[in-house]
Amino acid sequence: MTSKSRAPAVSDKANSSAAQAAKRILARLYAPIAGDLARVEERYRAELSSDDPYIATLLEYIEDYSGKKLRPALLLLAGKACGKVTQDHIILGAVAEMLHTATLVHDDILDEALLRRKRASINALAGNEVSVLLGDHIFSHAFEVSLGCSTTEGARQFSRAMAITCLGEVMQVNNRNNFDLDEPKYLKIIDGKTAELYATSARLGAHYAGAAPEVCEAFYSYGMQLGRAFQIMDDLLDLLGEEALVGKTLGSDVEKGKPTLPLIHFLSRSDKKQRALALTAVKAGAKGRDELLKLLHSTESFKYAAQKARGYIEDAKRGLAVLGKNELRPLFEEIADFVLSREL
Amino acid sequence: MTSKSRAPAVSDKANSSAAQAAKRILARLYAPIAGDLARVEERYRAELSSDDPYIATLLEYIEDYSGKKLRPALLLLAGKACGKVTQDHIILGAVAEMLHTATLVHDDILDEALLRRKRASINALAGNEVSVLLGDHIFSHAFEVSLGCSTTEGARQFSRAMAITCLGEVMQVNNRNNFDLDEPKYLKIIDGKTAELYATSARLGAHYAGAAPEVCEAFYSYGMQLGRAFQIMDDLLDLLGEEALVGKTLGSDVEKGKPTLPLIHFLSRSDKKQRALALTAVKAGAKGRDELLKLLHSTESFKYAAQKARGYIEDAKRGLAVLGKNELRPLFEEIADFVLSREL
Repeated sequence: MTSKSRAPAVSDKANSSAAQAAKRILARLYAPIAGDLARVEERYRAELSSDDPYIATLLEYIEDYSGKKLRPALLLLAGKACGKVTQDHIILGAVAEMLHTATLVHDDILDEALLRRKRASINALAGNEVSVLLGDHIFSHAFEVSLGCSTTEGARQFSRAMAITCLGEVMQVNNRNNFDLDEPKYLKIIDGKTAELYATSARLGAHYAGAAPEVCEAFYSYGMQLGRAFQIMDDLLDLLGEEALVGKTLGSDVEKGKPTLPLIHFLSRSDKKQRALALTAVKAGAKGRDELLKLLHSTESFKYAAQKARGYIEDAKRGLAVLGKNELRPLFEEIADFVLSREL
Repeated sequence: MTSKSRAPAVSDKANSSAAQAAKRILARLYAPIAGDLARVEERYRAELSSDDPYIATLLEYIEDYSGKKLRPALLLLAGKACGKVTQDHIILGAVAEMLHTATLVHDDILDEALLRRKRASINALAGNEVSVLLGDHIFSHAFEVSLGCSTTEGARQFSRAMAITCLGEVMQVNNRNNFDLDEPKYLKIIDGKTAELYATSARLGAHYAGAAPEVCEAFYSYGMQLGRAFQIMDDLLDLLGEEALVGKTLGSDVEKGKPTLPLIHFLSRSDKKQRALALTAVKAGAKGRDELLKLLHSTESFKYAAQKARGYIEDAKRGLAVLGKNELRPLFEEIADFVLSREL
């Protein structure tokens, strides 16, 4: 047991009030689709159920992995912006959240995470085997559910997106402890592992509202930039956040040898000596944290990563020019800004 | 490292000649669909490829997980028996084998298997993380491929079958070290984890050849009985087989606390003292093997399990009466018998 098992303590209040604030903001941003999102949640919960009491208990536990519901929200909002929200949107919103949930279940195995949203992760609770299988079940069932749409486009795009997501994650594992990883390759990894599912959700929302192909692609691109920014903010939180604030274990990415953007930036501009200091700090794990942060601050690497995230958010907003004077456009801009507000 | 890491040695020759004999039998049984099966294999290999050199290497390695190709063969033969083999059959044959491969990749994690088909398993080679993710990738991509059919029935049935398969496996994990597991519950587990994919493959073969619903269901039932018998034979091999003969590690099911049919039968008819002896032998792992085999022989529990398997095979054959004088019917009977020939 390392620092990962320590209880969240000091910042619980701060966390609670930050989480409350985020909830209030999201409630406002999701207002135009509040009723639709409730239907998505209902469907999501209905699909994560079972006649078998043991499996029902596990699935109910996993339901709570669902957090901000950003993917279904994007799907529904894109639908609303391009026409109207249909039954297809409700189905695919639930599918997006199921797929995301399945990846979280498997991610927790990969990360050996003990906590997820401040509760025991399912692998800590029921073991890795059950986590692998339940994740697989949710994947398979999500595909089955996606076939309930009026056309196969949703099933097609989501199965493709998931295949890409998994390959992004494989690439990440393959680059563990590769401290020569450069920014373009890093971006390729996060585009796969994180952004693809956002992008696909947004595009499908537009598609099922009958939007023109260029509008669908604009939403795909919006989701892609948003996902990139989201992941970079996650990288920042992983290094700078406190356990209680992020609701999962601390600094786990870098400790596990995943080079994230601030570190990649630092290494790209450090001399041999600086590089050695940073890698020693990384290897020291929790004990090296203060040293690593000092080094990364010295090159303004956190600032660089935050600016990159901001740049993607600006790109995301600009890309929606195709919507013209659509009344929901300001809302997509606010959602983009919300991703940045996760910054510490 | 336990006995699992020992190299297969003594029976390599026996294995090789048994494997050669099995290959010859299968070549004969698959003769009517040999060309179609080659097209399935070609498609399977094409789908398990990647532009990324690292991922391509992993996928090529995993391709060899494909063994007897019984699922695609059933699908193609059912198609041929009910009309003709179409492009849909080729696609779904590849999908069936991809799904099976994905479950093997994940099973090896669950079983902590070091060997698969006498080579290092992918998790032994590349780690559990990569195995989880590659399995997920293959699942997702298989669903994507299944959508290439002329209708969504294949995608629908296979996604449903996979969801059931995973739940069967979860139930098995939940019943690990449950030595009160009874035969009906055991059957429910193997119907899910093993038989469902055979049954679905056979049914889809009939469906895409335009067979009547009752014929489709007869094939489903045939596949189900075949799968049950196959799993029971697997259970027997797990206890009675030698590592070199089965190509994976030995007695791993019982060692890992999975009550299989011979043990369930023994426990159901043993007194307190006999039961205690058996459970002590199980807990002793490899060292308890001889004692366990002696006990299970004393109640003819292996014979009972083998008879059960034979019974399911007879049911499978009888169920195909619906085919009437179909010229392929004898071949389905031979395939059923082939499953029993795995007996030692």
